Amino acid sequence: MHPPFDARIEACRRRLETVGAELLICFPSPNLTYLTGFVESPSERHFLLFVPRDGAPAIVAPAMYGAQLESLGVANVRLWDDETDPLAVVEDVLEGMALESADSADEPTVLLDDRMWTTFNHDLRSLLPGAEFGLASAALEELRIRKDETELAALRRAGEIADRVSLEIRSRGEELVGTTEAELASEIDSLLAAEGGGEPAFETIVAAGPNGARPHHHPGDREIERGEPIVLDFGAFVGSDLEAGTARYPGDQTRTIVVGEPPAEYERVHEAVREAQRAAVEAVEPGVEAGEIDRVARSVIDEAGYGDAFVHRTGHGVGLEVHEPPYITAGNDRELEPGMVFSVEPGIYLEGEFGVRIEDLVAVTDGGCERLNNSPRGWESGRDVDR
Amino acid sequence: MHPPFDARIEACRRRLETVGAELLICFPSPNLTYLTGFVESPSERHFLLFVPRDGAPAIVAPAMYGAQLESLGVANVRLWDDETDPLAVVEDVLEGMALESADSADEPTVLLDDRMWTTFNHDLRSLLPGAEFGLASAALEELRIRKDETELAALRRAGEIADRVSLEIRSRGEELVGTTEAELASEIDSLLAAEGGGEPAFETIVAAGPNGARPHHHPGDREIERGEPIVLDFGAFVGSDLEAGTARYPGDQTRTIVVGEPPAEYERVHEAVREAQRAAVEAVEPGVEAGEIDRVARSVIDEAGYGDAFVHRTGHGVGLEVHEPPYITAGNDRELEPGMVFSVEPGIYLEGEFGVRIEDLVAVTDGGCERLNNSPRGWESGRDVDR
Repeated sequence: MHPPFDARIEACRRRLETVGAELLICFPSPNLTYLTGFVESPSERHFLLFVPRDGAPAIVAPAMYGAQLESLGVANVRLWDDETDPLAVVEDVLEGMALESADSADEPTVLLDDRMWTTFNHDLRSLLPGAEFGLASAALEELRIRKDETELAALRRAGEIADRVSLEIRSRGEELVGTTEAELASEIDSLLAAEGGGEPAFETIVAAGPNGARPHHHPGDREIERGEPIVLDFGAFVGSDLEAGTARYPGDQTRTIVVGEPPAEYERVHEAVREAQRAAVEAVEPGVEAGEIDRVARSVIDEAGYGDAFVHRTGHGVGLEVHEPPYITAGNDRELEPGMVFSVEPGIYLEGEFGVRIEDLVAVTDGGCERLNNSPRGWESGRDVDR
Repeated sequence: MHPPFDARIEACRRRLETVGAELLICFPSPNLTYLTGFVESPSERHFLLFVPRDGAPAIVAPAMYGAQLESLGVANVRLWDDETDPLAVVEDVLEGMALESADSADEPTVLLDDRMWTTFNHDLRSLLPGAEFGLASAALEELRIRKDETELAALRRAGEIADRVSLEIRSRGEELVGTTEAELASEIDSLLAAEGGGEPAFETIVAAGPNGARPHHHPGDREIERGEPIVLDFGAFVGSDLEAGTARYPGDQTRTIVVGEPPAEYERVHEAVREAQRAAVEAVEPGVEAGEIDRVARSVIDEAGYGDAFVHRTGHGVGLEVHEPPYITAGNDRELEPGMVFSVEPGIYLEGEFGVRIEDLVAVTDGGCERLNNSPRGWESGRDVDR
């Protein structure tokens, strides 16, 4: 394996020792990308990475990936084709690894990729009848939760791309009226690409008027009207310099804007969300519990009288996954550490009326945090918005 | 649940009886979309559909989906928020279902979504210590493998969109020279959207020259040169009229074109692939085994002397999943039936030189099959290509 993946595999093995596991098995997922640089979608085809605590890693993959895997520098690649039973190849690899538990009286512990499909879970359980099974995250989460400089650089770039698009959309003001949510979402995706982003990191959300009260609204045929709040939540993937091809660190930011004059109650609601977001970001520093950031955001919104309308957690970690630890959620006692990156995105959702959400990604630093998004957070739109 | 999903849930329960299972549990996946019309991405949040053989179905979901699920007409929605332990909600739902095996001496059998993540597999295993586990596909595959008229209409439309884009790219001829693979892929995605398609159904493949020898090449910085074969594999999702929001039936077609004069060996290789594809499509009719279609394609390529260079299966079923049964692969004795839809996509891959693949989707009819793609299959490009 090429550096830095050699080093990540080594770190993974040390983690296997720490958590008392003999083998980790990855499926096409962010874990596989983290350990090898290889980016692939999950599918029904057997594509598995085996990292034993002792001995050489192996990859089982469809024959057509042979050339790509060779260029990656993976040593032990076991290809299968339509004439081969992939399960037999997996069985052979497992036998070659001669799993032995550290305490030989115990059954070996095998960690399976958190995102591995049921189909492969069932296959591996039948091939390893004596094993105990755990989650790959037990070993990898501690490695992935602190981003290194290369990862931070990619996340910063993703943030800048989202910021530029956010400012551009906001500055269009009156021009947005009459556009459908779906058209605007598609325009945002094009702008993200034009600014140097890869694919959208998630389905771009444009939720106008009452649709904004649904945090995960799919953009539809609704035409944007003057005076209605519009929730805009988007970001594009950006490759780090490390991964082969299209590896991906996402942008993820939300702004809520209005063309013209907002509804009566709106400014108070927007201000409550903005203040909740500001206070929560302010509270971020090493040693603080993740749940405390959620508590800070929630208390501002509670005080404004909208506690019941803040229906989701305050944030989620971001890295090779758009949602990953640390989760900024009530009661999470995980202490923040430098290198952690997560969203701070309080919201208020008034069914039948509108929604407001404001979201930035932040990276924990030694003394506090760095905001990865810096575009304006107000609701005002048009050419005269402060740049 | 609204029709037709009521009917699909009923059919699912009859299948549970047939296969001897007491409960099916879906995760955000094509199975969930098939049974409810709800489209959502898999995530770490507990979002589960429970369909018991007897009794009412239930959905456990994050609170923020409440309004969307209500509009879907799902009766028993159990929402959780950051203050609730989602596992406790799941436990409560399972207790309410009072699983009893048909033969009460046996443990109940629970079918888990084939794509459910390991995390949820582990949770459900710990909540149902006595159960036997199987795959949801054991019940649902037989329902989903035969497309109804609404599904066929969506797949036809996806095919027409891909065909129009294919013809447009081909007709550009000389204009393609100097474009990078990534630029052309992005242009194809824009054209698919302009023709009425939704998101790309998979990462658009543009693989020029030697990159074409990698069936799953990610488009990169290589500039297209005159005289080199270019593999173009793409399609967009299209909604059927049934699903709420963005439900998705994919287009998927491949053409391999050349600007100017191809390499010496090229025409022979292209013709072998084209003839293999033609013969395989010709062989499609009810009662024929899926493996026979693969055999027909492979025998044409074998005879042309390129058998070792055809490194993948001949095709895959297409529906709510881009890859689903029936798989057109050696030895698959599944008999074709009217309503099945799959790709026929033989290829020849010459490492260091080029690749050729030609792919159409076909729908099995009472007397043979209907091609869902009908754009030209030759290698020639430019404005004068036969429309």
